[in-house]
Amino acid sequence: MNFLEERIVRDGVVKEGNVLKVDSFLNHQMDIQLLDQMGAEFRRRFDGKPINKILTIEASGIGIACIAAQHFHVPVVFAKKSQSINLDGEMYVAEVESFTHKCINHVIVGKKFLAPEDHVLIIDDFLANGCALQGLIQIVQSAGAVVEGIGIAIEKGFQPGGRIIRNLGFQLESLAIVDGMDASTGHIDFRPQSGEDQRKSDKTAEHVFKPEECVCRSSTLD
Amino acid sequence: MNFLEERIVRDGVVKEGNVLKVDSFLNHQMDIQLLDQMGAEFRRRFDGKPINKILTIEASGIGIACIAAQHFHVPVVFAKKSQSINLDGEMYVAEVESFTHKCINHVIVGKKFLAPEDHVLIIDDFLANGCALQGLIQIVQSAGAVVEGIGIAIEKGFQPGGRIIRNLGFQLESLAIVDGMDASTGHIDFRPQSGEDQRKSDKTAEHVFKPEECVCRSSTLD
Repeated sequence: MNFLEERIVRDGVVKEGNVLKVDSFLNHQMDIQLLDQMGAEFRRRFDGKPINKILTIEASGIGIACIAAQHFHVPVVFAKKSQSINLDGEMYVAEVESFTHKCINHVIVGKKFLAPEDHVLIIDDFLANGCALQGLIQIVQSAGAVVEGIGIAIEKGFQPGGRIIRNLGFQLESLAIVDGMDASTGHIDFRPQSGEDQRKSDKTAEHVFKPEECVCRSSTLD
Repeated sequence: MNFLEERIVRDGVVKEGNVLKVDSFLNHQMDIQLLDQMGAEFRRRFDGKPINKILTIEASGIGIACIAAQHFHVPVVFAKKSQSINLDGEMYVAEVESFTHKCINHVIVGKKFLAPEDHVLIIDDFLANGCALQGLIQIVQSAGAVVEGIGIAIEKGFQPGGRIIRNLGFQLESLAIVDGMDASTGHIDFRPQSGEDQRKSDKTAEHVFKPEECVCRSSTLD
C-alpha cells in the first residue's frame, strides 16, 4: 500500500451505499502534509510533461491543486460549479448532466485563464462517474489547450469514470483506486498499482458501463 | 504599498459598483507564490498565538488557507455553504442572513472538526459586510473553541464588516484594505497600515453602518 492507501485504511470510514468518508483528512478537514506528499507524487508521475497550469474544480479539489502546484511551479485555476448561469461570453461553460444525481451542472472557467498555448494538468479529489472531470476536459479542449494529464486522489474503480477517461487516451493517475468496499467489515479493496498501467486487468467484466450514468452534452467527447 | 497592494494595483480591475476583480491572481486563477507570501505575512502578524487549526470557507478561501497552513504547520478545515440543509446533528450550522443579497445562507462545519481545545485562525479572501465571517466566528464559539485571529486578503474598508469584527475585539488582519475605488480612473485608495491598528482613524464618519446589511441570527454576536 502507498501512503494514501495507508491513510485511507487508517482514517477513512466505509458507509453503506459504497460511500467512503475521508473528510477527516482530505475533503473537509485537510492534512496539509498529506496533500504535500500527494503533490510530490503527482510531480513524479507526470515527470517530463510540459505542464504550465493546473485546473481543478471547486471546492474540495482546490486545496490539493494548490499544494500540488508548488511542486510544478505553476498557477492554479479552479472551475466553478453552478446549476444556473448567465452566459456572458467571457466564460467557457460545459453543461454536464448527471443521471445519477438527476441534475444538470455547469462547469465554468473564465476564457482569459485558458489559451491554446496552455498545457494543463487536471487535479481533483474524487473520481467516480467522472461527470465533473468530463466537463473540465471539454473546457480545456474548447480553449484549444492540451490536457497533459489528470491526477486524482481517490478513484472509485467500480464506477465507470476512470475507464472512460483512460479509454479516451488520457494519462489518468489515481493515487488510490478503490475496487470494492464492505461497510459491514470496513474492508477496502485497492487495485494493485503496477507501474504505468492502472487499467483494471482481470476484472473488466465486473462493471457493465451504463452510458446514461453521466452524459456530457458536447460533441467533444462523443 | 505592500506586496499584495502592489499586485492589486498591477493586476486588479476596478468595475462600476465598487467591484474589485482580482480573479487573475487570487480567486479564480491563483498565483501560488503570491499565496505563499501571504501565508508568511499571516504567520508574522499572528506570531506567538497558539494556533492549531485554520478555518476557512469554500471556495475561494481554501487555496489561501492551505498555503498559509504550511507556515503554521496545522490542518485546514473548510466550512461549506448551502442555502438548504438537512440538519443531522453532526454539524455546526450558522444561519447567516444577507439583506444585501436577499438570501439566507448556511455555514456548515462537521462537529468532529472543532473542539473546545482548538485555537483557530480564520482565513478568507474577501471581507465586505462580513456575513460569512460572522457565521464562521459563531461556529467556532459554538464549539467552545477560541478564535485567535482572522486573516483576510482584501478588506473593503468602506463596507462595515471589518469595523464590526474589530469592535467585537477580534484581531483582524487584512493584508490590503481598500477604502475607495474609482472605476473611471481605476484608482484604488488603500488604508495606510501603521503597525498594529487597522482601524479607520480619521474617516470614521464616512460610512454609516446599516445594521440590516448583514444579520447573523444568533445570540452569540448580539
